Amino acid sequence: MNTNQKALSPESRAYAAAIFSTAPFIQELGIELVDIGAGRIESRLLILPKHLQQNGFVHAGVTATMADHSAGAAAGTLSAPGKKVLTVEFKINLLRPAIGQVLRCNAIVLKPGRTISFVESEVFAINEDTEKLIAKSSVTLAMVD
Amino acid sequence: MNTNQKALSPESRAYAAAIFSTAPFIQELGIELVDIGAGRIESRLLILPKHLQQNGFVHAGVTATMADHSAGAAAGTLSAPGKKVLTVEFKINLLRPAIGQVLRCNAIVLKPGRTISFVESEVFAINEDTEKLIAKSSVTLAMVD
Amino acid sequence: MNTNQKALSPESRAYAAAIFSTAPFIQELGIELVDIGAGRIESRLLILPKHLQQNGFVHAGVTATMADHSAGAAAGTLSAPGKKVLTVEFKINLLRPAIGQVLRCNAIVLKPGRTISFVESEVFAINEDTEKLIAKSSVTLAMVD
Amino acid sequence: MNTNQKALSPESRAYAAAIFSTAPFIQELGIELVDIGAGRIESRLLILPKHLQQNGFVHAGVTATMADHSAGAAAGTLSAPGKKVLTVEFKINLLRPAIGQVLRCNAIVLKPGRTISFVESEVFAINEDTEKLIAKSSVTLAMVD
Repeated sequence: MNTNQKALSPESRAYAAAIFSTAPFIQELGIELVDIGAGRIESRLLILPKHLQQNGFVHAGVTATMADHSAGAAAGTLSAPGKKVLTVEFKINLLRPAIGQVLRCNAIVLKPGRTISFVESEVFAINEDTEKLIAKSSVTLAMVD
Repeated sequence: MNTNQKALSPESRAYAAAIFSTAPFIQELGIELVDIGAGRIESRLLILPKHLQQNGFVHAGVTATMADHSAGAAAGTLSAPGKKVLTVEFKINLLRPAIGQVLRCNAIVLKPGRTISFVESEVFAINEDTEKLIAKSSVTLAMVD
Repeated sequence: MNTNQKALSPESRAYAAAIFSTAPFIQELGIELVDIGAGRIESRLLILPKHLQQNGFVHAGVTATMADHSAGAAAGTLSAPGKKVLTVEFKINLLRPAIGQVLRCNAIVLKPGRTISFVESEVFAINEDTEKLIAKSSVTLAMVD
Repeated sequence: MNTNQKALSPESRAYAAAIFSTAPFIQELGIELVDIGAGRIESRLLILPKHLQQNGFVHAGVTATMADHSAGAAAGTLSAPGKKVLTVEFKINLLRPAIGQVLRCNAIVLKPGRTISFVESEVFAINEDTEKLIAKSSVTLAMVD
């Protein structure tokens, strides 16, 4: 996967950034874009009480939103100009309860394609000084007109 | 699957209802519990601008949250007293863009278990007078102490 | 899903049948096509010792092969002439140990598409006089030239 | 994930090896165990005509069998003595058509557990002098008595 070594065009960078800045649900949750590369995205979320489920952990839906959205933007960095990226399906394995102050997500394109891309996202919870992998997601995306 | 014909104990009903009423993220999104049966949950969400992604569709993360949470509560109606239900993993296929005024979700336990349950959720978008299946999810849940 | 009511053209029937008859691995395993409809396939497998894993159950790989292949043929019944059907991804939940004399699979197209179709397969084990659902699979397929 | 640095007990090694040597379907296909470590397995398959599907590629069911079985053995290297490893579910993304002379699979435990483990498998096709990633799988396994 030499996607990371490829140069990222200003247009691709702008498109990926807009996927974050123009999505109301992402703004609502507070998921922030941290870094963009060719075929990769890093995002973060300051965990707030509103993000939790009934046992005090971050809701799987929050983690899934972060994994899916970051994957979409990662695919977007490699998509042809004018194409839109839409999620076809994703799976997420929740490996540990999500507890802490911050979630961090790395999304990396494993197989870019003209019509279908495959991306993996890892979500980590930062609790005090410890960072743990709490979820791994595999995402299939379609490039549409 | 004769789970639907089984009587639902008051304790199980209360536990499933609490999974909705005590989860801050579900309250935040506005996902409402509509109906509870033995091994099944119906929920709904009034679509608001905050739920959308960058192209004006409901964000896949909202749909996934609804599918996962409803699946958890459905499994909760059949879990032993004192057990908590946690999502191990889920997959969601997004079949059509989610456009409309309301999302409706049906979650049904396909295989209940003492330690692991398997649940399917279907999410429909209601747009004016038309209801369409927009997502199908398969969810694995663990029953933990 | 009114796919089942649609008439099945002779060409589509022939293409779906050929997906079974011309696949060496399916012949090798002994998976037989039982019935074809528009958007649906039924298949069966006589369980032999060679299909088992180390604990005496049918290997998950056999069950997955049956679920995936039947899904592909089901999508093939609805694909445009000249298109080939290829699996993009599938997930399978193994609900019970597969024990018995026969496996039976029903694959049904939930959402046909011009470029991507979504199909679900259920696999049942028939043991003496009892048939049990042992696996459920969700399959994404691409229609390619 | 420091699983790879942990020493592998003779019992664990023997159990993982037996998962390969005593599974009739794996012998039938010709999938060979190449290497065992703590939390990881490498396997290979010499591609034969019987492994193909209708278009001349290795059947997704073969690839899935290899990914699932290797994942099970990888989880088995870390399971408590006397426990059996069973697949709960797996998802596989098929990234490229599988063409070549040999398939190679690496399975690595991402999160070991007492009752549930999560493993990822990568499958590569070796064609002449080129090795390409053709599939990625995520596997949930249960440790049972």
